[in-house]
Amino acid sequence: MPHIDMNSDVGESFGNWRMGDDAAILKTVSSANIACGFHAGDPGTIRETSRIAAENGVAIGAHIGYRDLDGFGRRFLDCSYEELAADVLYQLGALQAMASAAGGRIRYVKPHGALYHSMIGNQTHARAVIDTIAAYDASLPVLLLPGSVALDFAAENGLRGVAEAFADRNYDADGTLVSRREPDAVLHDVDVVVENMLRLAEDREIIARDGTRIPMDAESICVHGDTQGSVAMAAAVRQALEAQGVQIRSFVTEAA
Amino acid sequence: MPHIDMNSDVGESFGNWRMGDDAAILKTVSSANIACGFHAGDPGTIRETSRIAAENGVAIGAHIGYRDLDGFGRRFLDCSYEELAADVLYQLGALQAMASAAGGRIRYVKPHGALYHSMIGNQTHARAVIDTIAAYDASLPVLLLPGSVALDFAAENGLRGVAEAFADRNYDADGTLVSRREPDAVLHDVDVVVENMLRLAEDREIIARDGTRIPMDAESICVHGDTQGSVAMAAAVRQALEAQGVQIRSFVTEAA
Amino acid sequence: MPHIDMNSDVGESFGNWRMGDDAAILKTVSSANIACGFHAGDPGTIRETSRIAAENGVAIGAHIGYRDLDGFGRRFLDCSYEELAADVLYQLGALQAMASAAGGRIRYVKPHGALYHSMIGNQTHARAVIDTIAAYDASLPVLLLPGSVALDFAAENGLRGVAEAFADRNYDADGTLVSRREPDAVLHDVDVVVENMLRLAEDREIIARDGTRIPMDAESICVHGDTQGSVAMAAAVRQALEAQGVQIRSFVTEAA
Amino acid sequence: MPHIDMNSDVGESFGNWRMGDDAAILKTVSSANIACGFHAGDPGTIRETSRIAAENGVAIGAHIGYRDLDGFGRRFLDCSYEELAADVLYQLGALQAMASAAGGRIRYVKPHGALYHSMIGNQTHARAVIDTIAAYDASLPVLLLPGSVALDFAAENGLRGVAEAFADRNYDADGTLVSRREPDAVLHDVDVVVENMLRLAEDREIIARDGTRIPMDAESICVHGDTQGSVAMAAAVRQALEAQGVQIRSFVTEAA
Repeated sequence: MPHIDMNSDVGESFGNWRMGDDAAILKTVSSANIACGFHAGDPGTIRETSRIAAENGVAIGAHIGYRDLDGFGRRFLDCSYEELAADVLYQLGALQAMASAAGGRIRYVKPHGALYHSMIGNQTHARAVIDTIAAYDASLPVLLLPGSVALDFAAENGLRGVAEAFADRNYDADGTLVSRREPDAVLHDVDVVVENMLRLAEDREIIARDGTRIPMDAESICVHGDTQGSVAMAAAVRQALEAQGVQIRSFVTEAA
Repeated sequence: MPHIDMNSDVGESFGNWRMGDDAAILKTVSSANIACGFHAGDPGTIRETSRIAAENGVAIGAHIGYRDLDGFGRRFLDCSYEELAADVLYQLGALQAMASAAGGRIRYVKPHGALYHSMIGNQTHARAVIDTIAAYDASLPVLLLPGSVALDFAAENGLRGVAEAFADRNYDADGTLVSRREPDAVLHDVDVVVENMLRLAEDREIIARDGTRIPMDAESICVHGDTQGSVAMAAAVRQALEAQGVQIRSFVTEAA
Repeated sequence: MPHIDMNSDVGESFGNWRMGDDAAILKTVSSANIACGFHAGDPGTIRETSRIAAENGVAIGAHIGYRDLDGFGRRFLDCSYEELAADVLYQLGALQAMASAAGGRIRYVKPHGALYHSMIGNQTHARAVIDTIAAYDASLPVLLLPGSVALDFAAENGLRGVAEAFADRNYDADGTLVSRREPDAVLHDVDVVVENMLRLAEDREIIARDGTRIPMDAESICVHGDTQGSVAMAAAVRQALEAQGVQIRSFVTEAA
Repeated sequence: MPHIDMNSDVGESFGNWRMGDDAAILKTVSSANIACGFHAGDPGTIRETSRIAAENGVAIGAHIGYRDLDGFGRRFLDCSYEELAADVLYQLGALQAMASAAGGRIRYVKPHGALYHSMIGNQTHARAVIDTIAAYDASLPVLLLPGSVALDFAAENGLRGVAEAFADRNYDADGTLVSRREPDAVLHDVDVVVENMLRLAEDREIIARDGTRIPMDAESICVHGDTQGSVAMAAAVRQALEAQGVQIRSFVTEAA
């Protein structure tokens, strides 16, 4: 039976500030990228989100980020290997306690925002992240953009790298994401998104904006839960995939 | 063979700011109260301090505090039970990862500063701390001031409470610490301190400033490592105790 | 011509987290309590909110708070007189620069959340706030709950204290707010709110929940802008007051 | 009469963490680069440092930095023009209130750490800093490394740029600082430092490590106050300069 994972960022509220409808999106996805407190997520939010994820059988992932609350982890921070390694380890431990309190544990890691982008080509930061995960728990897969140098480092360290595709993003013929500065960077048509994701799940292909067929060996689909529209789109993608006999399940083999 | 524990606050540097000579004091004490990042301690500092503690066979304790870096955790923060419980759990998890990376694990918990004082009589905060530790790992002892209501809650929850005495503080006849506003609150004479601590270790007694003998069932002696003088005083206390046949060892039964 | 002020909390977004519809509520109120970065408000948000306030001729007020982003300034923080005084001065200066960049300046001060409540009876914190404002700019009025001890300290220091009423809150016969723990603490019926505020503006009276008429010499009405409903209620209050010939204008004599 | 300025970083303590002997170095320098709370400096520290600077007739400068307490502002943070501009304005305002409370005002601006380095070649950040200062108070000089692109932007905006030399650093023949990775980057010999600074003040020249004479039109000498040795070196430099008839005074024309 064909299958694929769906992941979404959750736990990104902070104190009195709400973000996203975690309870809603956690009914659709199979993997929850839970903020760990450095780019978003206060301890109460993280604990509650872990609880909801566990309750829904959704795999808990550590959504680690740069220490930059006011920038939401979206700004590159030129920290050293040692600093980043310690920051990552701290976040993993903090989330682990929350996941454990919810009866679960961390099942994978996904870098967030600017740190996710650093995994593509910043060797120092990619090594800091991969080395830290490998030392912490070498059984944890790492969710990354296809082509990231961190995927190579993961392989060298015996870590499983998992590539993902973005449901609502347009791709160029070379397999890279269309820049957000271009008008057609983001897909808004649910039918187009669903069709793309069906093709991805069944044929391991994406159609670029110029019509080129791009092979893409993604094991997970990234969806959003921050607006009503995105939650609905994610649900539509899941429904369509399941209607076509594609099972939505975590890329981690055992259950959450 | 009589024995007693010696504990000290460590890991309280933050970023570019240094505090205390951790490497020095960790050669004298048997228990390390390691800051967890909320009142002090950046991830790199915490990891390094955990490493040095493990290297010296010193038991790693979680020095949990209110989230108040600029107040160093010394100001009461009127957070809710839920908020404090989540903040404590987050800190425990973060330190656990660091201790684990150092080949060890958390062996006990000691609230810091204003949170330590809240354990004396703030029922909401005392319950939040004790309940969280009990749910996280009920085998962890909690280091507290004798008479703290949290000691009662610990007993109710099946947690082991451990009372401590302060090497360099004067006591009143009722067993409470002389207020820091009074001129003789702090003891500066090493000989007096050593004599007091010998009596504590051997006879389970403290001599109050008016000469009253106070029974004190403390299993640990709190010393400081923030100045050269305090490190030297701590070393003198250890030497004197050992010379009298009192073994300095963690109140946790197994080795660190 | 009778007149009264309407004030609302604004500028409480932080980084990627949005809060309230500032642009909407600033079309209704005459006074903007702008967060200063300690309980909410990043510099970009504060600057933009100051700009919109100035553009709408709304008086800029410094909404000073305890340094507690994750608690949104709603938790009492037991800081010293000196610490609080310095924290208040820092916030005043930061907002002043933003107001100045918008072509305006700070016109009044309103403590936020737990600090607002401390003004009622915490003498140390009330004095720290009042002394700091008096030294910074003794022409700045301070917006407070009627009966606050800080109003007495303001009078002693030659500062103008301004009392406010809450549009959507029920009052007890003694003039205090009905506790939020009681079911009828908050008023949801726009007509009731409008009627109450008309009476306040015209007769300087509030009707308590038991029907008692309470004299209330409030010069400002506090409304909210955090939900669509509250923005609409605020607009309805303004419209009704103006329809009855009550002018809505800042309690500060000159224009913003 | 020949004259030159001496500047030093101060106000970099934070909460319970002390850094530098501000009272000592402020007896030697003529310009105080006071931290503004983003890389270092809590409000109480900033206020007290401003007071000591004013008391000693030392010009108060705003030592603005990236918002990065745990990295002490020493790590590049890739924020946007708008974000940085707002962060700079916030810091200027906050320090202004402190300087004003001390009876003074901000007399100049010096970017700190990674932000100082960004002024050399990061056009977006250099423009954000210069534009913000120009809009805030175009009479404020900006202290920078010779050759910084921000000096060009300052000139374009009608701001006065002031170049500085580093007392304890070695220079290469091209006028750049010897990298800290090289063994002779830092000068430890007080006599050499004094001789260099005398030459700078009198002949506007520096001798590079290979003996080349480099013209350097620096109006200020940067010294350190973080160790006993550096405070003593700074005092020696001042004494030697004064003995040779070089007056130490702020580059700002009027008194502080």
